[in-house]
Amino acid sequence: MNAHPSEAITGAIKRATRILVLTHIHPDGDALGSQLGLGTILRGLDKEVFLYGEAAVSSLYEFLPGSQEISEGLPDLSAFDCAISLDCGDAYRLGRKMEELLTVKPFIVIDHHAGHQDFGDLRWVDPHRASSGELVYDLAVALGAEVSQAAAYCLYAAIVADTGSFKYSSTSADTFRVARELILKGVNPAEVAGKLFDNFSRARLRLFLRVLASLQLHADGRIALITAPNKLFGETGAAPEDTEGFINYPRALSCVQVAVFLKEAEAGIVSASMRSKGSDLNVAKVAMAFGGGGHRNAAGFKIGDTTIEKLSAELLPALQTLLV
Amino acid sequence: MNAHPSEAITGAIKRATRILVLTHIHPDGDALGSQLGLGTILRGLDKEVFLYGEAAVSSLYEFLPGSQEISEGLPDLSAFDCAISLDCGDAYRLGRKMEELLTVKPFIVIDHHAGHQDFGDLRWVDPHRASSGELVYDLAVALGAEVSQAAAYCLYAAIVADTGSFKYSSTSADTFRVARELILKGVNPAEVAGKLFDNFSRARLRLFLRVLASLQLHADGRIALITAPNKLFGETGAAPEDTEGFINYPRALSCVQVAVFLKEAEAGIVSASMRSKGSDLNVAKVAMAFGGGGHRNAAGFKIGDTTIEKLSAELLPALQTLLV
Repeated sequence: MNAHPSEAITGAIKRATRILVLTHIHPDGDALGSQLGLGTILRGLDKEVFLYGEAAVSSLYEFLPGSQEISEGLPDLSAFDCAISLDCGDAYRLGRKMEELLTVKPFIVIDHHAGHQDFGDLRWVDPHRASSGELVYDLAVALGAEVSQAAAYCLYAAIVADTGSFKYSSTSADTFRVARELILKGVNPAEVAGKLFDNFSRARLRLFLRVLASLQLHADGRIALITAPNKLFGETGAAPEDTEGFINYPRALSCVQVAVFLKEAEAGIVSASMRSKGSDLNVAKVAMAFGGGGHRNAAGFKIGDTTIEKLSAELLPALQTLLV
Repeated sequence: MNAHPSEAITGAIKRATRILVLTHIHPDGDALGSQLGLGTILRGLDKEVFLYGEAAVSSLYEFLPGSQEISEGLPDLSAFDCAISLDCGDAYRLGRKMEELLTVKPFIVIDHHAGHQDFGDLRWVDPHRASSGELVYDLAVALGAEVSQAAAYCLYAAIVADTGSFKYSSTSADTFRVARELILKGVNPAEVAGKLFDNFSRARLRLFLRVLASLQLHADGRIALITAPNKLFGETGAAPEDTEGFINYPRALSCVQVAVFLKEAEAGIVSASMRSKGSDLNVAKVAMAFGGGGHRNAAGFKIGDTTIEKLSAELLPALQTLLV
């Protein structure tokens, strides 16, 4: 809940020479923008920086400057004298190499997730902030580091991605303060928004129309459900990651208070994304009951050995309990 | 191009006792938010304020505090010692009562449209600003006026409406500066975004899916066309004004450079909305050739005694000439 990183954190970073910069698996725009932005900022402080990611960067985020520098191979971890984990609410979301990664000392954790599960050695966790990108910017200021145009671009993209372009309830005066500073460093807001939102391939548009056509309304229209069964990806030629943002469309119905998207990216494995409106409807609570997590108004989980039909029969009653 | 209103403008407003506040016909969110916000600000300065609008406020903007105070009847204009026109790029867009309205002296004009056609006595026109809402906020600061939460709400909505939530190319560091100030006055950004964007009725969503399904790509995917024939409104139960914003979806295809939406709101009368990407594709030129107008990247026109098929056969070749 601190507005600034502690001196323990800035001191540890200043003393470090080789820094490992991490984020969570299946990284979204905030995760990757924060990771890439901090990487550039730390290099500007003459640090050796290694950006690790368990999997290749999604094509949706290849436009972020430096995205090709995130490496899927783990280097010799004994050579690092600092690790910084960004936007990761739980050690398990560091991925398969979690245990090895946590051996790097000091292990600094910077995050903004509500329900953050403490890990690492030094933590700056502020669930009132809308994005990790904002925290990285304020870290750079606290370090006295220069924020180049490329770093500003990544951090601005991180903010826009995690606030739905300043629309989500986490958006605060701090969000606008940092956005303004980043624009002053030469970022073109329309260009970033175009890359993040005007990125539909024809296959993705086909998928979009099919997924939206699946819309079901429950609980007098207060719950909206859309679905993407596995066969839809083959039929439309789109990839599972192409569904990014689809959940915002059922959410845009004025009657809807909770929107759910059930996606079967692999046969038999169904992920649920949930979005709610207002401060009374905490979908993270439901996500946690199904072994997932997230924020009050945006949460999710993944379950194996199930079907969309089976999972929706379990999930809809749980969501209905939120409405009363 | 001035960053602040002149002392002639602030002086005239300070001296005035009864002020007529105006905006353009068919007012959008920026027009109404600016008009309502300025009305509240001026009342806080103990001015008598009259908000005039030629037609009733669209149901899309009824959520703006004070929207019911905009009056369709014109009062005795000799009683006013000042008029302020907001967001109006051309005197003709003041509507049917233009000539009478312009008799109020001094007539102050505050606008941000590129291609603004000068009118009135005192002008503050800055095409580099993203919204009139920003200009009204800076006017309030220059007047030393208090900006109440209700006024801040209207001005914030104005900014969000005219920037597509900080996505359009006009978005600047000034936009974020003002947005932050307004948030600090107690505006909830998610609530405003919800009112502006999450306002789909079920009928509107049905219409949306039908219109998007009409997508045709031309010129190797560089031109996208969507259509709404008149019968679609009856079939979906949606109204012609429910198509607001649909043009942004074909525009979101990465291959598309020009998006066109042909809508037959009344049988035989077809309106065309065009959106282009980048600074080289001036759709206003094409709109003017068809008797319409607009901005470089957003323009339109309306034609009677035609069909969607006939008009698209004429319009598509004209748009193709832009691409070469």
